[in-house]
Amino acid sequence: MSEVRLRDIIERLGGELIGDPETRIDSIEPLEAATPTAISFLANPLYAKQLAASSAACVIVAPPFRDAAAARGATIVSADPYLYFARLTQWWAERTQPRQAPAIHASAVVDPAARIGARVAIGAFAVIEAGAVIGDDAGIGAHAVVGAGCTIGAATRLGTRVTIARATIGARGIVHSGVVIGADGFGFAPDRGRWEKIEQLGRVVIGDDVEIGANTCIDRGALGDTVIGDGVKIDNLVQIGHNVRIGAHTAIAGCVGIAGSTTIGAHCMIGGGAGITGHVTIADHVVVGGATQISRSIAKAGFYSGTFPFDDNASWEKNAATLRNLHALRERVRALEKKSP
Amino acid sequence: MSEVRLRDIIERLGGELIGDPETRIDSIEPLEAATPTAISFLANPLYAKQLAASSAACVIVAPPFRDAAAARGATIVSADPYLYFARLTQWWAERTQPRQAPAIHASAVVDPAARIGARVAIGAFAVIEAGAVIGDDAGIGAHAVVGAGCTIGAATRLGTRVTIARATIGARGIVHSGVVIGADGFGFAPDRGRWEKIEQLGRVVIGDDVEIGANTCIDRGALGDTVIGDGVKIDNLVQIGHNVRIGAHTAIAGCVGIAGSTTIGAHCMIGGGAGITGHVTIADHVVVGGATQISRSIAKAGFYSGTFPFDDNASWEKNAATLRNLHALRERVRALEKKSP
Amino acid sequence: MSEVRLRDIIERLGGELIGDPETRIDSIEPLEAATPTAISFLANPLYAKQLAASSAACVIVAPPFRDAAAARGATIVSADPYLYFARLTQWWAERTQPRQAPAIHASAVVDPAARIGARVAIGAFAVIEAGAVIGDDAGIGAHAVVGAGCTIGAATRLGTRVTIARATIGARGIVHSGVVIGADGFGFAPDRGRWEKIEQLGRVVIGDDVEIGANTCIDRGALGDTVIGDGVKIDNLVQIGHNVRIGAHTAIAGCVGIAGSTTIGAHCMIGGGAGITGHVTIADHVVVGGATQISRSIAKAGFYSGTFPFDDNASWEKNAATLRNLHALRERVRALEKKSP
Repeated sequence: MSEVRLRDIIERLGGELIGDPETRIDSIEPLEAATPTAISFLANPLYAKQLAASSAACVIVAPPFRDAAAARGATIVSADPYLYFARLTQWWAERTQPRQAPAIHASAVVDPAARIGARVAIGAFAVIEAGAVIGDDAGIGAHAVVGAGCTIGAATRLGTRVTIARATIGARGIVHSGVVIGADGFGFAPDRGRWEKIEQLGRVVIGDDVEIGANTCIDRGALGDTVIGDGVKIDNLVQIGHNVRIGAHTAIAGCVGIAGSTTIGAHCMIGGGAGITGHVTIADHVVVGGATQISRSIAKAGFYSGTFPFDDNASWEKNAATLRNLHALRERVRALEKKSP
Repeated sequence: MSEVRLRDIIERLGGELIGDPETRIDSIEPLEAATPTAISFLANPLYAKQLAASSAACVIVAPPFRDAAAARGATIVSADPYLYFARLTQWWAERTQPRQAPAIHASAVVDPAARIGARVAIGAFAVIEAGAVIGDDAGIGAHAVVGAGCTIGAATRLGTRVTIARATIGARGIVHSGVVIGADGFGFAPDRGRWEKIEQLGRVVIGDDVEIGANTCIDRGALGDTVIGDGVKIDNLVQIGHNVRIGAHTAIAGCVGIAGSTTIGAHCMIGGGAGITGHVTIADHVVVGGATQISRSIAKAGFYSGTFPFDDNASWEKNAATLRNLHALRERVRALEKKSP
Repeated sequence: MSEVRLRDIIERLGGELIGDPETRIDSIEPLEAATPTAISFLANPLYAKQLAASSAACVIVAPPFRDAAAARGATIVSADPYLYFARLTQWWAERTQPRQAPAIHASAVVDPAARIGARVAIGAFAVIEAGAVIGDDAGIGAHAVVGAGCTIGAATRLGTRVTIARATIGARGIVHSGVVIGADGFGFAPDRGRWEKIEQLGRVVIGDDVEIGANTCIDRGALGDTVIGDGVKIDNLVQIGHNVRIGAHTAIAGCVGIAGSTTIGAHCMIGGGAGITGHVTIADHVVVGGATQISRSIAKAGFYSGTFPFDDNASWEKNAATLRNLHALRERVRALEKKSP
């Protein structure tokens, strides 16, 4: 691990330093587990009690914790310590996690009719088809396939074996390994007990600054496009059906499924394992709890939940059995109410 | 986009045309969003009110809507407009979405002991192992791997980086990118706190006209085979365990999990995110609602559901807390009933 | 299929043989479906009634079933027939399912600064980056990518297109096709309506004897590592978030999602489709039922469940509607109790 001094951090990221600017830092660590050469942060006031005991060389804190932190040792005061920490990790990664070198691997198959920008990295065995356009500074992982006519924005990075077909992705995106963008949506017309395929004629259009997690799938539109807004963040193993539209800066955690033709607003947060049915509309600033199933449109910002509370198996079985007759129980309460004086 | 005339469509797909056969069509679009050179369709009577206002050059309708549609402009009358639309998309895709050229890419590794049919397309970096048999007109995507002894039926298409091992797939199938067919089922015997692997000795046998969505997994049988019937349609990110059997023409939406040794009938529809436990049997013509967990066999055709209704978080919390004591609440109602005169 | 004699099985795996040691066996089959040249087993006493009618050449049974089995035909008596069966499948697979030959395919891209052990197999188009260490007898599938500095333990096998980055995996592991180990965890700091990326600086550390199912994802830690203990078995399409820790010999079925920074004990079993929220701790020897959502820590070993019981759709709708007013129903019962004499 490479080492920096607190002075370097302040020069790069700002903030007020209390303590010796020559202090050497060789890692970023959580408050309670920090070693004496680490920098740490206090983002959640609930953890304030860990501050005094932390062995960190320096702690990033918000102004209200300035004195408590300074009493302990070197301190960086920042209005938003969590954001400061995020930017510190970015700088750290730049220094310690080398990016793909801007070179086209000899084994890659790049169609002569593809347009490749400046300083593009293309990994081993990648395939870039005719008419594809790869923006400047983009990175294409080993075994990735950029299909005919697809556009990859400037500085966007595709991980290993990402498949992109009939799609456009904006600038500064990150697409992790195994993602499939632009596969067929799931559409069939019934025909005397068989399914007749509805060919999917649309595309996927993805904005700038979008991150897409490993093995996630985003299907292309049937008619018209599937659209992912700017700044959307999607975790691993998420399924996004055809003609879904997701508003800007919405975050979607792992294992979520969003069925076809649903529209999700901007600045939403969808918890892990949640499901959203097809053909509904979710307003901006909606938060959906983990594993919640959204079965109709939501017109109002807010926090929505709906999971069965877990319990020891025996208690759950008794409650679940009663639940299967809940409507009848309500009728019994009604009958009692009628009789009641 | 290439252009056709209404005359071309009628010649290809039949139906009765009301209006000028020379009308030019350059896209297929939904009724409410159609542009003046698009063809659209009215499949669901609920959308009939959109008919009059649609700007489409031509609308495909069922006989009961003939007059209303004709009053608006060019009309194709068909007994099943949705099926007509499906076939129209197929023709459209044939014309506008080029298939892989029937050629073996120079970089592909094809074992001399594999048997490759006529007019087969094999993409860059694909691997075809010894004893594999690839049917006529089949297409194998870039980075796909067809394992030793596997059979791919005529005209079946594998997307990029599909892995097929110890499996057979019939004719006219479509397997999307990232699918894994024939990986080990999940089987272990407990041995003093450790898990001893049960090697999976069976295969996967897939019928004709099966479509399998991106990143879906179908495990091979432990003893005996995992069997997917003719005409089955499976969406993305679906997990099908070892020794599962799925009857013909069943459709399975995204993110479904089906545990080992379960048998699902023919003509079933399994909603997105549903789960089906192992070792159960589901009758033909069963419909399972999205996210529903099927925990025992279903002997009768019908529509089955079971999800917790979502609500604003505060309401859900109150109801969920009460649910944890539902059995006790029933006892209280019983006690009241006993006391009640 | 190759053939063995009962004598060979006993020599290899022990147990007491009743019957002719020269009896030839050409397959392993389930009791009720066994053909006359198959060996079968009775592991679950519930299936004891199938014993008499089975056509198997030989049945493996526990001591209590010795006489019933011997009355039927050749019998192997073993203290744990299921474990015996597991070991038999292992021997069978060794004989009938050829492993990758210990050779490096000419097309593989192996960095000169990678360290490759003895008898290693590396498939077509695999990529081994600088500083990677591949243990003796390991197998790397076609299109697999072992990132810079990763370690693959002795005799560990990676399937096709496995991606491993910033990770270490122990000995005798099995990683199935499409697995992504070491992608970025899902971490962002909010910044005026946008998400600022928290670079993920940790690694994934996986113990010995771990099996990981197809298309499963294990993210690397944000700070510190994601840790998977020895002997852990993970099925297909499982999502394991950053900084999760899983204790030794825990088994996780398909489609499970485990959110970031959660700790799961040793010897747990997590049912298919279950979800576990972030930042909780699950004790050793906890069993979580399929599709159950664990929303808080579990301090005590036991069996925990929580799924909505499915029903025919009409009944479910009535009960679900009532459930949305369950808290009010409880208040009504309270009111009745107060009035009740």
